[in-house]
Amino acid sequence: MFRHQKELQFEIKVEKPDPMLARQVQEVLGGQFGEMTVMMQYLFQGFNCRGEEKYKDMLMDIGTEEIGHVEMLCSLISQLLDGASPEDQAEAAKDTTTAAIMGGINPQHLLVSGLGGLPTNSNGVPWNGAYIVASGNLLADMRSNLHAESQGRLQVARLYHMTKDEGVRAAFRKMLARDRYHQYQWMVAIAELEEKNGVVVPASFPPEAEEESQQEAYEFWNLSEGEESKEGPWAKGSAPDNTGDFVYVAEPVPKGQIPNPEVPATELHHDLDVKAKDK
Amino acid sequence: MFRHQKELQFEIKVEKPDPMLARQVQEVLGGQFGEMTVMMQYLFQGFNCRGEEKYKDMLMDIGTEEIGHVEMLCSLISQLLDGASPEDQAEAAKDTTTAAIMGGINPQHLLVSGLGGLPTNSNGVPWNGAYIVASGNLLADMRSNLHAESQGRLQVARLYHMTKDEGVRAAFRKMLARDRYHQYQWMVAIAELEEKNGVVVPASFPPEAEEESQQEAYEFWNLSEGEESKEGPWAKGSAPDNTGDFVYVAEPVPKGQIPNPEVPATELHHDLDVKAKDK
Amino acid sequence: MFRHQKELQFEIKVEKPDPMLARQVQEVLGGQFGEMTVMMQYLFQGFNCRGEEKYKDMLMDIGTEEIGHVEMLCSLISQLLDGASPEDQAEAAKDTTTAAIMGGINPQHLLVSGLGGLPTNSNGVPWNGAYIVASGNLLADMRSNLHAESQGRLQVARLYHMTKDEGVRAAFRKMLARDRYHQYQWMVAIAELEEKNGVVVPASFPPEAEEESQQEAYEFWNLSEGEESKEGPWAKGSAPDNTGDFVYVAEPVPKGQIPNPEVPATELHHDLDVKAKDK
Amino acid sequence: MFRHQKELQFEIKVEKPDPMLARQVQEVLGGQFGEMTVMMQYLFQGFNCRGEEKYKDMLMDIGTEEIGHVEMLCSLISQLLDGASPEDQAEAAKDTTTAAIMGGINPQHLLVSGLGGLPTNSNGVPWNGAYIVASGNLLADMRSNLHAESQGRLQVARLYHMTKDEGVRAAFRKMLARDRYHQYQWMVAIAELEEKNGVVVPASFPPEAEEESQQEAYEFWNLSEGEESKEGPWAKGSAPDNTGDFVYVAEPVPKGQIPNPEVPATELHHDLDVKAKDK
Amino acid sequence: MFRHQKELQFEIKVEKPDPMLARQVQEVLGGQFGEMTVMMQYLFQGFNCRGEEKYKDMLMDIGTEEIGHVEMLCSLISQLLDGASPEDQAEAAKDTTTAAIMGGINPQHLLVSGLGGLPTNSNGVPWNGAYIVASGNLLADMRSNLHAESQGRLQVARLYHMTKDEGVRAAFRKMLARDRYHQYQWMVAIAELEEKNGVVVPASFPPEAEEESQQEAYEFWNLSEGEESKEGPWAKGSAPDNTGDFVYVAEPVPKGQIPNPEVPATELHHDLDVKAKDK
Amino acid sequence: MFRHQKELQFEIKVEKPDPMLARQVQEVLGGQFGEMTVMMQYLFQGFNCRGEEKYKDMLMDIGTEEIGHVEMLCSLISQLLDGASPEDQAEAAKDTTTAAIMGGINPQHLLVSGLGGLPTNSNGVPWNGAYIVASGNLLADMRSNLHAESQGRLQVARLYHMTKDEGVRAAFRKMLARDRYHQYQWMVAIAELEEKNGVVVPASFPPEAEEESQQEAYEFWNLSEGEESKEGPWAKGSAPDNTGDFVYVAEPVPKGQIPNPEVPATELHHDLDVKAKDK
Repeated sequence: MFRHQKELQFEIKVEKPDPMLARQVQEVLGGQFGEMTVMMQYLFQGFNCRGEEKYKDMLMDIGTEEIGHVEMLCSLISQLLDGASPEDQAEAAKDTTTAAIMGGINPQHLLVSGLGGLPTNSNGVPWNGAYIVASGNLLADMRSNLHAESQGRLQVARLYHMTKDEGVRAAFRKMLARDRYHQYQWMVAIAELEEKNGVVVPASFPPEAEEESQQEAYEFWNLSEGEESKEGPWAKGSAPDNTGDFVYVAEPVPKGQIPNPEVPATELHHDLDVKAKDK
Repeated sequence: MFRHQKELQFEIKVEKPDPMLARQVQEVLGGQFGEMTVMMQYLFQGFNCRGEEKYKDMLMDIGTEEIGHVEMLCSLISQLLDGASPEDQAEAAKDTTTAAIMGGINPQHLLVSGLGGLPTNSNGVPWNGAYIVASGNLLADMRSNLHAESQGRLQVARLYHMTKDEGVRAAFRKMLARDRYHQYQWMVAIAELEEKNGVVVPASFPPEAEEESQQEAYEFWNLSEGEESKEGPWAKGSAPDNTGDFVYVAEPVPKGQIPNPEVPATELHHDLDVKAKDK
Repeated sequence: MFRHQKELQFEIKVEKPDPMLARQVQEVLGGQFGEMTVMMQYLFQGFNCRGEEKYKDMLMDIGTEEIGHVEMLCSLISQLLDGASPEDQAEAAKDTTTAAIMGGINPQHLLVSGLGGLPTNSNGVPWNGAYIVASGNLLADMRSNLHAESQGRLQVARLYHMTKDEGVRAAFRKMLARDRYHQYQWMVAIAELEEKNGVVVPASFPPEAEEESQQEAYEFWNLSEGEESKEGPWAKGSAPDNTGDFVYVAEPVPKGQIPNPEVPATELHHDLDVKAKDK
Repeated sequence: MFRHQKELQFEIKVEKPDPMLARQVQEVLGGQFGEMTVMMQYLFQGFNCRGEEKYKDMLMDIGTEEIGHVEMLCSLISQLLDGASPEDQAEAAKDTTTAAIMGGINPQHLLVSGLGGLPTNSNGVPWNGAYIVASGNLLADMRSNLHAESQGRLQVARLYHMTKDEGVRAAFRKMLARDRYHQYQWMVAIAELEEKNGVVVPASFPPEAEEESQQEAYEFWNLSEGEESKEGPWAKGSAPDNTGDFVYVAEPVPKGQIPNPEVPATELHHDLDVKAKDK
Repeated sequence: MFRHQKELQFEIKVEKPDPMLARQVQEVLGGQFGEMTVMMQYLFQGFNCRGEEKYKDMLMDIGTEEIGHVEMLCSLISQLLDGASPEDQAEAAKDTTTAAIMGGINPQHLLVSGLGGLPTNSNGVPWNGAYIVASGNLLADMRSNLHAESQGRLQVARLYHMTKDEGVRAAFRKMLARDRYHQYQWMVAIAELEEKNGVVVPASFPPEAEEESQQEAYEFWNLSEGEESKEGPWAKGSAPDNTGDFVYVAEPVPKGQIPNPEVPATELHHDLDVKAKDK
Repeated sequence: MFRHQKELQFEIKVEKPDPMLARQVQEVLGGQFGEMTVMMQYLFQGFNCRGEEKYKDMLMDIGTEEIGHVEMLCSLISQLLDGASPEDQAEAAKDTTTAAIMGGINPQHLLVSGLGGLPTNSNGVPWNGAYIVASGNLLADMRSNLHAESQGRLQVARLYHMTKDEGVRAAFRKMLARDRYHQYQWMVAIAELEEKNGVVVPASFPPEAEEESQQEAYEFWNLSEGEESKEGPWAKGSAPDNTGDFVYVAEPVPKGQIPNPEVPATELHHDLDVKAKDK
């Protein structure tokens, strides 16, 4: 069960409205790696967690924090939209500056939300459940979490340069710091799990020869012209779990057959044999 | 520019058809972490790569390999569907076994693709571009790649237990091996990049105090009842880059204001002051 | 079966083109509460109506009217786009005013529809079937209809201020009037149904104590700090159907357990017990 | 800012697993009118609320409650899935009963979530942001809220009959009660707002003749054959705000022109005049 | 403006319910090539048609017919669902036959639509506006129409074998006939347009050498191993408009450069030069 | 299996960046008829092809070519974005020209892809699998292919006029030529198949009277007022396969019944008979 406290986690005080920026900020609210994503991802991982109290509690701590981040971004967007009005569009016909601003705003900020944040990205595409993952395998999911916080901080960093508004930047500084902490957090959690179970996900799939093909687990296939890729650590030396050595296959040869699929029943109407059938 | 070779990368020879399994296998073809995802993700990362030839070549090698994985899975699904026919549905009214099988298949395998693979997941939801990421930041993207291969191998491992068909299992063994190799590959590439630029993404955002809030970059906020989360490595000790020590905030207090948004123009029709306005 | 008459329901005569407005108007054509939504919603409710001839006929009357509203909006958008051309984009490099206009238009109006209306909202997101509802329960659905007409009229009212074009405004005045009538219509239909069956949906679910929990049907849970909500009519007095009195629970306490889910089979590869299993 | 408490709002104790029911229950978790929808809808309405403290606080109370409902449903689905395993699919080839069950489950409950709830509906379609509305107009939005709770309770009522499991039914009884209370809540809030501002949304759009067409605000157009619709309260008597009387237009005649759109520039390539142009 | 007539275009009388078939039939109602698609596609093409009265009228005739096809399919699906009930699911735990049927139905037919047709395909994916096209170029669009009717008739033909119910088959025979007629219709319309403007879309793009590359307009590039494709009519002989002869390029060589994209500004945080920048 | 060659198929050398054009070009990369669509469509048709080696090889040739077209467009978009930076947005507050350009760009080109191509259309809507078709019936699918290349070339032609950049135009000239060739290709392939199997899809559905309704296969129903449509070739003369003559039905009469659906079980809660039931 959840409870709400009226204060925002951090202060959000925009110096002056900027509806074009409001549109861009939607990316970190309702985009692929926005706050809605990490909020729902951590909550679902926490809700579905089976048998690991320390991790479950931690997931609920951070998932709960992220609900408050969605709240902060809605507050930020509302302030960036303060004072915007439908009349601006009517003015745009007469005035280039107004037209330029109107061209850059999200029309739904006026028409649909009435100056509030939207559950969509910077192009107005609605957030959707396929952005998140909660697989039950903690290591797999924490790699996703580390990734999401990396993309999230990257996007906030890019946004940071898009404004000189000190109020907005102050908010971004807090978000950058939290995204940095959350990267740290997943890194150390991942290290702990890798230490315990090994680095390959899932750890519990039998690695013996009869269950998994061994040779192909160490080969780099050079399928793009040029051998610059030969110089990477993926092409030489040992696998991170020291179970084998990497092999650079410079001239790979397919190991499979040329597929020769069966002709289907006439009732599927592929029409391969219409004349024959008519006879 | 690309070229195609007729043989499959690995042999795909199903012992006997299983249309219910064909539906499940769609998850690793056209699902969130299926082969279409890694194929498009690596290709877009490679196409958009700016200024790192070794990585670009490697991304193109693996992206090109993954196109062939989509090809293999279509071949696998086609074989699992061999012999299925629309009449089965008409029989289902009479026969429980047929009804049970019909209930478990994807109707689009009969109606839409005529026994071929579909660009959709195991529930028939179409693959979409929001599954992939290519941000330009190599470390951020490789964390996504490691994650995708982790989820991918996890799903193939789960599928492995869903069949006893030795032909299908042989194909899965190759896929498990390649997903294992690809996990290794991204791990070592990530280690190399972290060594070079540090572990926080993006590395180039100024970490000095005046640009980023420092305190919040090390705090764990205990927002879910209970302190089991205190025991994790994210709550004590140093950050992985040794820039500071973690602090467990057992009783966090909000630092922001209670939001008090401006009342919008009447023309937005929030109807807060209708009577007042009428006067 | 349907028939078409060439004249539009109302006159659509734009004074002069305005491609930026054309983009905004897409919201009320193909957005969440646009004319495509009410058209498909009323038609599906009518097609699926079982056993209430008066309502079915009425749903078909209004659903049929709404097809004509989609037609009118396509006509409006076409006129707003008259004269737009791809060359404008080439000019935009040279001229700020042109650039401002080009920035504000929907590129698909040039590239995809060739100056026609699109089945999308103001941000280009395609209309989809999940916008509509036809549940078979008339009262539930009419509450949706009343809601859709409320949002629809709100959006047209906001659009009204976005233009000073008297031709466009004349069209909006008709749309506002019809949306007003349709709000009236659903209100009186709802009142009739509530009178007949009671105000709770569905009316036919057994309200006796053994089938439905009674206590929780009257409690307001104060889960957000502050008790301003205590002042509303939802916190005191009787329920609208006089079956009980509202209770304001100022300090709510959870009634459930702490969840403790079962550890799943190893073959799901949650990796909780990898080491144990290896022994 | 939010906080989490470990106990569930209500007890969730399933008597025995039922993976087919788990799939159906997804509808009220991640479907169009599931708990994710009301949670996000109330939170966004609360976050974006401008200038009405009593309503804002109430929206935050109920939005916060609904986060806990998502939590309860994840717990319910997890229990319904307890013990399910990938091997069941392999068994299905041999056993009709197993095949029947496997055909009825959501394959993603095994492959993707590892026996946890998914952010999708009963057919696996991901939840998306276009399910919700937060327009800034309280009356419009509360009509949506009343509607959502009506559809929600209707679906839970239908689900109730799908199981005889007393544990599941006990949980549904609580959900039915809360959905009943929430219907009451929005009804009385709506009544209060209608009392204050009138019944038409938005109230603030000038209703005088020169701004809105009056005649069309009272007419029912009989566009579907048959006059059964004439008998409804929408076809006779006064509008609910007593501003006029309804008129049943038995034989409606269009008031608009036959559209005659302009021929576009050649560069749009409609190809109407190719030959002419070549000369 | 449109009008509705109560009778269905053709008789729909199902012999006996078959809820599993009801799910399959959704494909031709709300799938990619279902009746909703052709209805919306022809209506939008008609609404947006500029300057060709004969075609516009024809598009409106057929678009209007297709609204009635959506109506017929809803009626068919309702009859196939007659008598289905939520209790069936509760029975499924006890009875294999019931379980088999429940596994094969669309849960939303019970939970969401209450036994009515849904605006979704056979897997429950909502219909969306991106299924349709109305480009303004008549020849391009009619090629789409011919294609849609081809896929539509193919799917109905496959469905035909899925049932032995003579009532359902009688309805399908009418649909097959109309889809056949509509294929004829678009074929002859296409032939007329090709006769007038030539076979290449768009006809109005300047075909002279300085505006369009000529050589590449006749070359088949052999990019897949094997030369079976050499035997097709696309590899030899003249183009259909006799403007040139096809060339089979057996060993194609790329004509472009190796891309060498610019390194972006530091503020995009690609992190290519972090160390350098720090100095 | 596939291989990659470093050179692009054709040269891509933009004269100077144009971020607004970069947004438009996304339509032909990730839009409904963009290169991602034809690439995936031809590959899936090739992968799923059963029993026609000449066609399968050809589909693989062209599908493989299209992967390279996606590559070229990513290169084109990257060059059009060269030099764009987040600071531009901060400048936009001060400078109309910058604001106009910022308004016209896709914010995700800065925030999400870091100046690379995106798997989305010109409005940022992600590409999805429902854009493509691979039905197993070659004639049906090739009609789709011809259509896709027609829309594709139409869109590139429109784009051509949107720029005066000779580098961009040179690239478009190659694309126009390939789209022209591909139209030719599908036309001649279609002609060959129609010659072999007849013009109606599917050819293998029994055309005899007892299996398909004959009368309705030749009738044009005049359901839109006016008889301009009477003048088309679809209203008189013989069907293209000479199996019958077209009939213009000027005053069509429905042949079906007025639907009268069954009242559902009380447990579906349509609430038609609540009072009756209570007694």
